[in-house]
Amino acid sequence: MFKITPLKGSLSNVDGFYCDGVNVGMKTNTANSGVSDVDGDVAFIRSDTLCDISAVFTTNTFAAAPIKHFQKYPKNFQSDFILINSKNANAMTGKKGIEDIEDILENLESKIKIQNPIMSSTGVIGYRLKKDLIKSAFDKFDFQAKNSYKTARAIMTTDSFEKELCFKVELEDGSYFHLAAICKGAGMINPAMATMLCFVITDANVPKPDLDKLLQDATNQSFNTISVDGDTSTNDTLLIMANKKSGVYNKEAFKTALFALTKELSFQILKDGEGSNKVVAFEVSGAKNKSEAKIASKALSNSLLVKTALFGEDPNWGRIASTIGASGIECDEESLIIKYDELLIYSKDKPSLDEETEQKAFKIMKKNEFKISCELGVGVGKFTSYGCDLSYEYVKINADYRT
Amino acid sequence: MFKITPLKGSLSNVDGFYCDGVNVGMKTNTANSGVSDVDGDVAFIRSDTLCDISAVFTTNTFAAAPIKHFQKYPKNFQSDFILINSKNANAMTGKKGIEDIEDILENLESKIKIQNPIMSSTGVIGYRLKKDLIKSAFDKFDFQAKNSYKTARAIMTTDSFEKELCFKVELEDGSYFHLAAICKGAGMINPAMATMLCFVITDANVPKPDLDKLLQDATNQSFNTISVDGDTSTNDTLLIMANKKSGVYNKEAFKTALFALTKELSFQILKDGEGSNKVVAFEVSGAKNKSEAKIASKALSNSLLVKTALFGEDPNWGRIASTIGASGIECDEESLIIKYDELLIYSKDKPSLDEETEQKAFKIMKKNEFKISCELGVGVGKFTSYGCDLSYEYVKINADYRT
Repeated sequence: MFKITPLKGSLSNVDGFYCDGVNVGMKTNTANSGVSDVDGDVAFIRSDTLCDISAVFTTNTFAAAPIKHFQKYPKNFQSDFILINSKNANAMTGKKGIEDIEDILENLESKIKIQNPIMSSTGVIGYRLKKDLIKSAFDKFDFQAKNSYKTARAIMTTDSFEKELCFKVELEDGSYFHLAAICKGAGMINPAMATMLCFVITDANVPKPDLDKLLQDATNQSFNTISVDGDTSTNDTLLIMANKKSGVYNKEAFKTALFALTKELSFQILKDGEGSNKVVAFEVSGAKNKSEAKIASKALSNSLLVKTALFGEDPNWGRIASTIGASGIECDEESLIIKYDELLIYSKDKPSLDEETEQKAFKIMKKNEFKISCELGVGVGKFTSYGCDLSYEYVKINADYRT
Repeated sequence: MFKITPLKGSLSNVDGFYCDGVNVGMKTNTANSGVSDVDGDVAFIRSDTLCDISAVFTTNTFAAAPIKHFQKYPKNFQSDFILINSKNANAMTGKKGIEDIEDILENLESKIKIQNPIMSSTGVIGYRLKKDLIKSAFDKFDFQAKNSYKTARAIMTTDSFEKELCFKVELEDGSYFHLAAICKGAGMINPAMATMLCFVITDANVPKPDLDKLLQDATNQSFNTISVDGDTSTNDTLLIMANKKSGVYNKEAFKTALFALTKELSFQILKDGEGSNKVVAFEVSGAKNKSEAKIASKALSNSLLVKTALFGEDPNWGRIASTIGASGIECDEESLIIKYDELLIYSKDKPSLDEETEQKAFKIMKKNEFKISCELGVGVGKFTSYGCDLSYEYVKINADYRT
C-alpha cells in the first residue's frame, strides 16, 4: 500500500534539484501566454549530484540535433544538467546543429561545474541556434534557484498555460519519494513548433533498468495515446532524471505515480490542444486484436471529418462508422455498436437516429469531455486514444504561426 | 496517331445515351450551388442498348448499399440504366438499404423497359432512402432528354460547380469515338457527404477486358492521387458504360483519352475541395521504391500542418521535412532536397532560408497552383500526389454540414 499526494510547485519540491528560466530576447511577445510579462526562452534543470537518465524520443527520422547530441553519450551515462530553449527546434540543421550544441555547452561548463550536460530545444525547424543569445542566459540564470514556474513557462511555445505537476509518494512505513515534472506542447506532435517536451525528476531510489522500462511503459499509456493533429515532431522528448536522494523505492508505487503523472500531463497537453475546445476518448473494443483496435482508435482521433463534427457538436455518427470502415481493420456493420457516453447511437437494428436520441446526443456533444465507444464485435482487442476537436482557431494558429 | 478534342455538353454528345436530373424535394436550398435555382436531387443516365460496365468502388469496409447491390449482379453483366440520388448515401443501412434499392428499381422497371439497372447514392450516412420521393422522380424524368448539365448538377452535394467533360477521339483514318463523363465530389473522399462519384460513358468499341484494366489504371493515376482530407468514403464510385455504337477503337487512343478525362475531373474535384484555395503537387522522387515515394507524398498531401501552412502561404519547409521524416520511409537529411517549383528551399548546405529566397518562396505560395518537390536521394522511386490547403472555410463547411 502507498499514498500519492499532489504537491504545489512541481520541480522545486525535490531535494537536490534546481531550475530557472530567463528571457534572452528570443521571445518578444506575450501571445498565447495569458500573462502580461514576456516569458523566458532559455531554462535549465540541474541536480547537485549525478543522475541516472532515461529518455524516450521522437520516432521521426529527422530527429533534431539535441536528440542526436544526446545519443552521442555512452549508454547508461549519467548527467546533472539539462539546458532547454524555446523558439528554435535546432532541427534539420545537420552537423552544424550538433556543433552549435557542443559550443554552447562548452561555454556553460566554463561557468558552472557540471557533467555530461544535455540540451533540448523546441520551436521552428530549419534555423541555426543564436548561440550568443543562448549563452547570454548563463549570466542571467540563478543556478541555486528552485523556480519551477519560470522554468515551465520558458519552455512554452503556443501553449496557453504552463504544465507542471508533483507527486509525493508515501510508502506504508512512512518513508517517501517524489516525482515531479514540467511539460510543454499544444499539439501533441506538431512538427514546426509545438513539439512535446516533458522533463521528469525524482528522488526515488529507482534502479536504472526499472527507470528505462517504466518510462517506456508510461509513454505508451499516456503521450502515445493522444493526438492533436496526427503529426510527429522532430523534437519530441520525454526525459527523466533520478538522483536517488530519498533512498526510498517501491516499484509498484513508483510505477503508479509515474503513470498517473504522465497521463495527467498528456491530458493537459490535449486540453491545451491548439484551438481545441473539448477532449474526446475514442474507445474501440471487440477488435480482432489490440493492434487493430489501436489502428481504428487512432484513425478516429485523427480524422478531419470526425474532428470538425466534434467542433460543430453534430452527432454525425456516419463519420465515425466511415472512418472505422476506411481504416482497413476487420469490422462488420452487422456487429458494430456505437455509443456516445452510455447513449446507444448505432446498432444494426437502429441505424437512423430518432429525434429523442439525437437531442440526447447533442447534449453529450456539448460537454468538454466525453467518450465515443465503438464495439466491433469481432474479437477481444481494445484500445482507447484521446483526441480533440478541430476549430477555426487551429487553422488560424497554424496558418499564422511563423509570420 | 490520333487527335483528342474537347466538346461542350459532356454526356449529350454520345450517340444512344440519354440523361436528366430533377428535383423531388430532397434538396431544398441553393447553398454552395452558385446558381439561383434549386438543383435536382435524382438523376439518370441510360443507354438505348445494353452496355458493358466496369466499375471501381471504395475500399471502405462499410461500402454503401448501392455498391453491395451492384455486386449482386453476375460478373460481366450488362446494363442500360443508372439511377443516382444525392442528399442520402444509403450507407450503414444494412439489408434494408439493399431492399430499398430493389423496391425502387422494380418500380422504375414498371415505367420504362430497362435491364439490370444500377443505383448510386451520395449524401449523409445512416438514413434510409425516402423511397416514395425518389420514385416520384420517375414521372418527372424525360427519358428521351440529353440534359447533361441538369444531370451533373443533380448529383452535387457540397460541390460549388458541376463537373462534366467530353472528348472526341479521332483516329488517323477519320473514324472517331467519344468519352464523356460527369463527376461530383468536393472532398475526394469525404465520408458523410461529399463522396466522389464519376460516371463515364463511351461509344468506343472497347473490349471488356480493356475496359476493366484501363479503368483501374486510370483510377490509380487520377482519383487515387488526390486528397482533400484523407478520409475514404463509403460510396466512392467510378463507373463506365460502353455501348460500342461508334464501332471504332484504338487502345492507345482510348487509354490516352480516358487518362486525360479522369485526370482532369480529379483536378476539378481538388479545385472544388471544400474550402480550398489552391492545388499543390507533392512530387517525391529518389525514394527507395515507388511504394515509399507514395507513402511520403500522401503523408504530405494529408498533413494538417502542411495544409495550414499552404493556407497561410508560409514557406515553412520545416513542416515538409518533418512530415517526410515522420512517415517512416527511408530518408536522410544529408541527401534531402526540397524545392518549391524550381526554387531550391532546402539542401544540407543551405538549411536556413535567406531573405531573398524567402521572398521568392512567398511569391510561389501565392499562386493557385504550384509544386513542392522532395528529392530523397536514396533510390529511384517516384510518386506525385495532389492536395489542397486547409482553410477556416473547410472547418465551417464540415462543422455545419448536417444542421
